[in-house]
Amino acid sequence: MNKPIILFGGQSYEHEISIVSAIALYQALTSQCVFVFLSGDRRFYLIDLMDMKADYFASGRYKKAPELFLARGGFVRKGFFGYAPIDGDEVVNVSHGADGEDGKLAALFEFYGVRYVGPRLEASVLSFNKHYTKFLASAAGVKTLPYEIIKRGDKIKTPCPFILKPLRLGSSIGISVVKSEADLPFALDAAFEFDNEAIVEPFITNVREYNLAGCFAGGEWKLSIIEEPKKREVLDFDQKYLDFTRDKKPAAAALPVGVAESMRETFKRVYNHGFAGSLIRCDFFVIDGEVVLNEINPIPGSLANYLFDNYEEIINALIASLPERRDITVTYNYIHSIRSAKGKL
Amino acid sequence: MNKPIILFGGQSYEHEISIVSAIALYQALTSQCVFVFLSGDRRFYLIDLMDMKADYFASGRYKKAPELFLARGGFVRKGFFGYAPIDGDEVVNVSHGADGEDGKLAALFEFYGVRYVGPRLEASVLSFNKHYTKFLASAAGVKTLPYEIIKRGDKIKTPCPFILKPLRLGSSIGISVVKSEADLPFALDAAFEFDNEAIVEPFITNVREYNLAGCFAGGEWKLSIIEEPKKREVLDFDQKYLDFTRDKKPAAAALPVGVAESMRETFKRVYNHGFAGSLIRCDFFVIDGEVVLNEINPIPGSLANYLFDNYEEIINALIASLPERRDITVTYNYIHSIRSAKGKL
Repeated sequence: MNKPIILFGGQSYEHEISIVSAIALYQALTSQCVFVFLSGDRRFYLIDLMDMKADYFASGRYKKAPELFLARGGFVRKGFFGYAPIDGDEVVNVSHGADGEDGKLAALFEFYGVRYVGPRLEASVLSFNKHYTKFLASAAGVKTLPYEIIKRGDKIKTPCPFILKPLRLGSSIGISVVKSEADLPFALDAAFEFDNEAIVEPFITNVREYNLAGCFAGGEWKLSIIEEPKKREVLDFDQKYLDFTRDKKPAAAALPVGVAESMRETFKRVYNHGFAGSLIRCDFFVIDGEVVLNEINPIPGSLANYLFDNYEEIINALIASLPERRDITVTYNYIHSIRSAKGKL
Repeated sequence: MNKPIILFGGQSYEHEISIVSAIALYQALTSQCVFVFLSGDRRFYLIDLMDMKADYFASGRYKKAPELFLARGGFVRKGFFGYAPIDGDEVVNVSHGADGEDGKLAALFEFYGVRYVGPRLEASVLSFNKHYTKFLASAAGVKTLPYEIIKRGDKIKTPCPFILKPLRLGSSIGISVVKSEADLPFALDAAFEFDNEAIVEPFITNVREYNLAGCFAGGEWKLSIIEEPKKREVLDFDQKYLDFTRDKKPAAAALPVGVAESMRETFKRVYNHGFAGSLIRCDFFVIDGEVVLNEINPIPGSLANYLFDNYEEIINALIASLPERRDITVTYNYIHSIRSAKGKL
């Protein structure tokens, strides 16, 4: 039986959300796991299960936990006889936002040969940047809202009402609905506090929004129910935060069969564009009966465990069917051949 | 005076090219540098200047060099009193292909807070994948050839002659010109040996190809001459390999002033889409007087030193004006506020 390493934290605006996510997973999973925390200054710590409480991190007490280092093959810990691997197997990445979702951790895992659940490097970079997500959707043949990308000082062409988001953040941070010109200065400040670029999309009043999570694991699709999340205009940080920790599975949304089927097909098209190895959540709009991709969450809050019945089975199936790395064997054929043709190089 | 760390090698099909590149830089740069080699099994080694010869690597003798480790702040080396930083400053990334150009090393440097010359994470991922390069070009308003992306077994719609390339490789590896159906089986085998996806583009007979390298450093554009590289139909590996080591600056291509100016403007548009901090080379076609982007080389062979007169100045200016990291300070405001609202979390 494998012992997954749940990795959370990171240098990101979603650091706290990641802590809450990991605690929710700690409560949801019955199998033995190891918890590794990535602090805001990018040190790894091995966390005792007894310490999986938000205040342990907020108070800074985690600094007394054993520090870990990432080395070839996985996490190591300093012992009497040098550095030794920790007791744990595949990493499950629940570091939301920067570090975890922007591709940095994926790159580290690839580089050091660590098997992990989570978006791969390309998928991370594309889904972390809302502009590139549009490209990905377009390549996958999936419809999204029209948009424009702006920098500070650019004139916005989209008419009000519109929604303004920092280009590279999740969890609703820095997002505003601009109903009239008067809302704009605050919205711009909020967005540009977090990024140098922002995306503008039309805000559609009373649009229905739906969440669908899932993965392809063990040779088959494991899709969640489709949830229609309760919302205010935009889910804010506090609300999402509390949302992850709920313990009741929501009811499936009442959707016409055709629309639900189309949403599942759209999910699969997105997932097939690079998300193998991860459990993602897609947020969709339904506009005039048509499914429109709003966002891809490649590491959804608490890994969307509350949307599934047999969650633990799914995570285990995913771990058992992670994409194989395509290792490259380096040779020196050219240097040898040129050397023999040219004499000593 | 800074002492740059030239990093080369990596687990990639272009491992050997990177070695030749680094040797060319060793010969071209007069200022003091440190050379760090990344072996095919992803160990870092500190290379003595006397050992900067291709055979030192091809023979495996590098394994006796001191091993380095990447830690917070930079490379460290084991000494009598634990691990100590090596004597060197910013990294100059000349690891071509996977690891160096696919975003893995960029991610490591960002994560560990290492200042470096080379493409950033997003720019790496986008330029390494020839499909995403099309997206980047389209976002930058830059013209490219029409294309299709294929997997093994897909029917190709583009009529012959066309050029078939693995989706994620540089240095002409696995590239074929398919003049008629008869060439296809070999071309497919060649491309799919290196990737699971390939890109098909029309092959334009007698098209003129041009290289332009440069960067934005010290507040101004530093652009190379425009070179029209000598070529057979497609530059092959051996030819490129030898090309990096040449020591004569080529003549500037004879181009109408307007076309040359348009090429420089196109270069800047590409560069401004995420390449700050790197010195890149763009390969262009000129078709009916119009500039068309063929490829972006975010780490060109031997960093294109042979295309510049005042190369060392440019590299130093680039090092002195690297993009600032946008470090995030993690706070625990939400956990504290929720904790006080809800009682102990």
